[in-house]
Amino acid sequence: MTSKTWSRVGIPALLLATAFALPVLAQTAAPAADATTTAAAAAAAPTVNKGDVAWMLTSAVLVLMMSVPGLFLFYGGLLRAKNMLSMLMQVGYCVAIVGLIWVLYGYSLAFTGGSPFIGGSPFIGGFSKAFLSGVTGESLAATFSVGVAIPEFVYIAFQMTFAMITPALIFGAFAERTKFTAVVLFVPLWVTFVYFPVAHMVWYWAGPDAIDAAAKAVAAAADGAAKTAAQAALDGVLADAGYIFSLGAIDFAGGTVVHINAGIAGLVACLMVGKRLGYGKEALSPHSLTLTMVGASLLWVGWFGFNAGSNLEANAVTGLAMMNTFIATCAAAVSWMFVEWLVKGKPSMLGLASGIVAGLVAVTPPSGFAGIMGSLVLGLIVSPICFIFCTAIKNALGYDDALDVFGVHGVGGIVGAIATGILVSPALGGTGIFDYTTGAVAPYDMATQVIAQLKAVGVTVVWSGVGTAVILFIISVVVGLRPTTDVEREGLDINEHGERAYHS
Amino acid sequence: MTSKTWSRVGIPALLLATAFALPVLAQTAAPAADATTTAAAAAAAPTVNKGDVAWMLTSAVLVLMMSVPGLFLFYGGLLRAKNMLSMLMQVGYCVAIVGLIWVLYGYSLAFTGGSPFIGGSPFIGGFSKAFLSGVTGESLAATFSVGVAIPEFVYIAFQMTFAMITPALIFGAFAERTKFTAVVLFVPLWVTFVYFPVAHMVWYWAGPDAIDAAAKAVAAAADGAAKTAAQAALDGVLADAGYIFSLGAIDFAGGTVVHINAGIAGLVACLMVGKRLGYGKEALSPHSLTLTMVGASLLWVGWFGFNAGSNLEANAVTGLAMMNTFIATCAAAVSWMFVEWLVKGKPSMLGLASGIVAGLVAVTPPSGFAGIMGSLVLGLIVSPICFIFCTAIKNALGYDDALDVFGVHGVGGIVGAIATGILVSPALGGTGIFDYTTGAVAPYDMATQVIAQLKAVGVTVVWSGVGTAVILFIISVVVGLRPTTDVEREGLDINEHGERAYHS
Amino acid sequence: MTSKTWSRVGIPALLLATAFALPVLAQTAAPAADATTTAAAAAAAPTVNKGDVAWMLTSAVLVLMMSVPGLFLFYGGLLRAKNMLSMLMQVGYCVAIVGLIWVLYGYSLAFTGGSPFIGGSPFIGGFSKAFLSGVTGESLAATFSVGVAIPEFVYIAFQMTFAMITPALIFGAFAERTKFTAVVLFVPLWVTFVYFPVAHMVWYWAGPDAIDAAAKAVAAAADGAAKTAAQAALDGVLADAGYIFSLGAIDFAGGTVVHINAGIAGLVACLMVGKRLGYGKEALSPHSLTLTMVGASLLWVGWFGFNAGSNLEANAVTGLAMMNTFIATCAAAVSWMFVEWLVKGKPSMLGLASGIVAGLVAVTPPSGFAGIMGSLVLGLIVSPICFIFCTAIKNALGYDDALDVFGVHGVGGIVGAIATGILVSPALGGTGIFDYTTGAVAPYDMATQVIAQLKAVGVTVVWSGVGTAVILFIISVVVGLRPTTDVEREGLDINEHGERAYHS
Repeated sequence: MTSKTWSRVGIPALLLATAFALPVLAQTAAPAADATTTAAAAAAAPTVNKGDVAWMLTSAVLVLMMSVPGLFLFYGGLLRAKNMLSMLMQVGYCVAIVGLIWVLYGYSLAFTGGSPFIGGSPFIGGFSKAFLSGVTGESLAATFSVGVAIPEFVYIAFQMTFAMITPALIFGAFAERTKFTAVVLFVPLWVTFVYFPVAHMVWYWAGPDAIDAAAKAVAAAADGAAKTAAQAALDGVLADAGYIFSLGAIDFAGGTVVHINAGIAGLVACLMVGKRLGYGKEALSPHSLTLTMVGASLLWVGWFGFNAGSNLEANAVTGLAMMNTFIATCAAAVSWMFVEWLVKGKPSMLGLASGIVAGLVAVTPPSGFAGIMGSLVLGLIVSPICFIFCTAIKNALGYDDALDVFGVHGVGGIVGAIATGILVSPALGGTGIFDYTTGAVAPYDMATQVIAQLKAVGVTVVWSGVGTAVILFIISVVVGLRPTTDVEREGLDINEHGERAYHS
Repeated sequence: MTSKTWSRVGIPALLLATAFALPVLAQTAAPAADATTTAAAAAAAPTVNKGDVAWMLTSAVLVLMMSVPGLFLFYGGLLRAKNMLSMLMQVGYCVAIVGLIWVLYGYSLAFTGGSPFIGGSPFIGGFSKAFLSGVTGESLAATFSVGVAIPEFVYIAFQMTFAMITPALIFGAFAERTKFTAVVLFVPLWVTFVYFPVAHMVWYWAGPDAIDAAAKAVAAAADGAAKTAAQAALDGVLADAGYIFSLGAIDFAGGTVVHINAGIAGLVACLMVGKRLGYGKEALSPHSLTLTMVGASLLWVGWFGFNAGSNLEANAVTGLAMMNTFIATCAAAVSWMFVEWLVKGKPSMLGLASGIVAGLVAVTPPSGFAGIMGSLVLGLIVSPICFIFCTAIKNALGYDDALDVFGVHGVGGIVGAIATGILVSPALGGTGIFDYTTGAVAPYDMATQVIAQLKAVGVTVVWSGVGTAVILFIISVVVGLRPTTDVEREGLDINEHGERAYHS
Repeated sequence: MTSKTWSRVGIPALLLATAFALPVLAQTAAPAADATTTAAAAAAAPTVNKGDVAWMLTSAVLVLMMSVPGLFLFYGGLLRAKNMLSMLMQVGYCVAIVGLIWVLYGYSLAFTGGSPFIGGSPFIGGFSKAFLSGVTGESLAATFSVGVAIPEFVYIAFQMTFAMITPALIFGAFAERTKFTAVVLFVPLWVTFVYFPVAHMVWYWAGPDAIDAAAKAVAAAADGAAKTAAQAALDGVLADAGYIFSLGAIDFAGGTVVHINAGIAGLVACLMVGKRLGYGKEALSPHSLTLTMVGASLLWVGWFGFNAGSNLEANAVTGLAMMNTFIATCAAAVSWMFVEWLVKGKPSMLGLASGIVAGLVAVTPPSGFAGIMGSLVLGLIVSPICFIFCTAIKNALGYDDALDVFGVHGVGGIVGAIATGILVSPALGGTGIFDYTTGAVAPYDMATQVIAQLKAVGVTVVWSGVGTAVILFIISVVVGLRPTTDVEREGLDINEHGERAYHS
């Protein structure tokens, strides 16, 4: 373990192409040769450590467990029994269809450069790895340490699980009242036009090896002309990054890409779909808070794959990310419990479960950057904020965010993303931000970093909000968003899926 | 990672005995010295990588989670509440008793050579490792890479979890109408006379180190006599393998051993036990599809231990097996959903869950051999085939395979086993089959390979079908298979176990 | 893997301080320089293997899954529906508050030397690592192998999950009739005054590197004076250990610290809280044995993190601990089933689940020391003993240990702790006890070791019994232990948490 592992700047996307690959079925596009690959190839080849591989395989499994069964139990338990299967079905379908899209073109759009769209690559990748073209058992993906890589298959699997869960998070906002056909259309459109671009903007970069090699070439260059050329090459490598990444924003495990993205989409969706029948007039009681707590627990368990897995290695930073994830969550759970106890007179289990999720959401962006005491404070703070949004503000504004997707994922994600700019401060126990061009932690200025974080939040909010609205408008025209009143009243399960969840 | 890791031919059984072992309690049999051990000992000792160990430990845990609670929830949710505990009990008992049998003699019968039975070793192993005799902390088990081993304790644990789940898969076929005493007898008999032999036939071989060393000895041998002797030694090492392995059939993670084996046994069992009371006349509605979907999800989560764990290392092949397992499952889930939507007018959650399991079953044998696009196609194809068997064919023939063990595990397993012979093709993105005598991928001929796969299917079908029928006949004579009509009508739980699953 | 990995003497606590740490927020205490750190620093720095890190990260996740959702499902299913949420809430709160306490001062009290209390360190640690002061990404924690370490963050996370689950185990004893405010106070008091001291007494030691270095210094010392000084230094290193550790007792994964500790506390608590209304007069039927079996299964799955994770490395000993955990549990499950079948006429699923937990508890202390056949025998024996305590003895004495915390964790833990002294015997297939001063397995005498184990049990029983009684007495005075009769009759959920678990 070197001190280089002590900081990082997002999730890598440098995927070194290899020449000796076995052919992959249905290669429809030749892999584009790009500058970063060439630069990296000039340096020593990175090595793979099987301990990293073991951890990343485990992490991918854990993140899948967040979706199925974690998320569908957390959400499903909060529904009335007549709509339970619709949630299980939607989440199951989401995971499956996103997996297919991921290998067909999603991974390529998120994690390659050289986009043919929108005037270059900062907003979305290209199709050079569509159908996983050119990806073989020899292909490597960079980590955040110079010279350390993991097999690209493992990286693809891990990142895929993030794409699978994100659209499913949104379902909580429009639960119990949306047509299954609308969901069937929504998922592929949303991942394509919202998730992949945002993932590309936040996480795509040339990677540590490419930057390190280019920076060393600058240092080694002798005279003026060579120096200028080397510097230009380095600048090119640094410029090969997503838009939000280039703004200097940091996001360890997906606060913007996953939580703000889904939270804003949820808010837009529940506004466009409208309220449930009877909302605000009759009790829409959860059919099983037991299942909800099981879901919250499995989300917590799986979230270690999400946050600690995002380090892409098994080292001390992974341990730090695990501890931050533990402690922010503990703090947020306790905080929500006592806030609710004070405000409402009784601490509820649903409050505790909500606190767990709020803490997990908030610590996602700073999980590998913050100190543990910083995460503790973050956890204490995020719960009251989310509590206010899930109660007073939602009631005041009257939108029916059925399972508080915006109130927890949107608000908690924004709190976490901004806090990341503060908690990364070495003066507060954070790791600082590593500068691969100098091989040292970069000078830190809180205002600068917080502004970068705010910009990242702003771009994500706008992209997700506008994109989701456009997609839902199209779907509303094509197939409609809501079932008939009779169907909604009788339940989605029996009408849309021909089944009931329970028979006594 | 070397290119040698890029292919493999089954799960290894070369378990290098060691001399410096601490004594193990109850050593009742001296370990047999065999030729392969001597040959391997002459080569350089293989090394253990802790990353492999970490992944294999994790994989064993994941496969246990498939049985308890994965499988019992998937099955149990589909039952009527009055029989729920009987399923939990049967699966729990199965896991427990198979664990005991495994260390007493099961591991030895499956994974040693030199059988005293049936004229030699191709059909079953011997008792040289009964009571885990001679297995110590120094003992190693081979992987599929020359020179790479894992601790034998870890290999024993991993393989044990396969033996634990396989008989439990069968329970779905005769659920709700079989005496617990019959199940208590069935499990030990079935693993002994069906599972261990088939596992031995498919997975027992001398291992990469033994073959590599013997092949190098041939290459190094100088004159004619030495060459002849060395070639004879190599032939002996190659001949030290199970019957189906010797046919040239490949099975990465147990399509034959686990799924066809259990699927055929399920078909035989449901025919011999007979239909449930009321089958075909009244609705036998599942008491909780929620639990079924939780079970399907945990099967999916755990199956990565099953398939990706079967690589025995944490490298790029493991990542490939993980991706294949993901994508075939996604494709089968989506495929089943749309097929059912087309045929029946509504997509059901039970259909989605069935598609998930069908995809997992089908991709099990090719998971480390196929390309990812090949797995996608396999997933799309397997669901309609299983769908037909679980609906039209089952209804036409009138057997009561209560939870579609044959329709999903049997049929899906056969589809996967045959497809493995096709998808392994390097021309289709597959890995090809590695030849340890040459150190390179062997020439591939599709017809030859598919015929080998068909033979493997045929041997498994016959062995499992005949063995299961004989065992159930004996049990029917000794204790009977079915409870009284009154017991069946009132439910197995209260009558056989004195409990009810739920009290409100 | 060296033969050194073949034995061990408890869980290490030598946490090598480092000089180059990034500052941690809220450093309120300077780390105390202690002799062991200096001694260790003189030796070669231990190295970190990423395979070990991967396994320990996974293990921490598995142990969390034991608490949430494993334990709360196992316990909750056994309750009446009206009290379900109270159990989910208590366990969730326990995990969260203990996490916060752990990083504030708990880890420091358990795993540092130089206590300012009770005349030195044998009973409890000090505050030198309060707020995780001085712990950074460079900090290492020792394993049981000389020269092998893991990142301290990972060790902290792993040990934290043990502290989280132990108080939650107690809740089963006083379930359905205890005020939430009492639980809110009980958890922080109990971990502080009972758990941390016992963990310190059992697991705190100077670690293998410090002992090895000091022993080598003795061997290398030339003349009389230097020899005497070196010997004195070695004696100092050996004396730097917890009280129970110094008695020579061994406990691989927490039989004393976790199970006896919680079991005795449970007995005391159920006596002090009193019986449930209607206990012994009306049926207090479990509302969902399905959930109980899911919980038992997830406890089993997670327990591999607990037991096999306690080796702190991913090697053959870890594999042995996994196999022992598997086989003792299988044996205990089968044993309980047949004992109950014989005694009561029917084998119940609750019996099977109880056997699973009893086996897991009993094998916890010997899991890395016993041979596999020894664990099998232990599993067969522990179930009848626990069965008698959970039925005849409990009924005879009339205490309302609602979910058999004492009968399973207390009794099973005591059986396991004593059996560890026997099963560690090399003559019975055990590993023996490694002596780091000689670098070899120490001579073994069964009577001596069993006496040491009995002393460990005795100290734990007294400390836990007295400590728990005092704490509960204080709480009973301050806020009271029991809700009103009306609240208890109507259910804790609606009265204390304002919710019901289920709505149809």
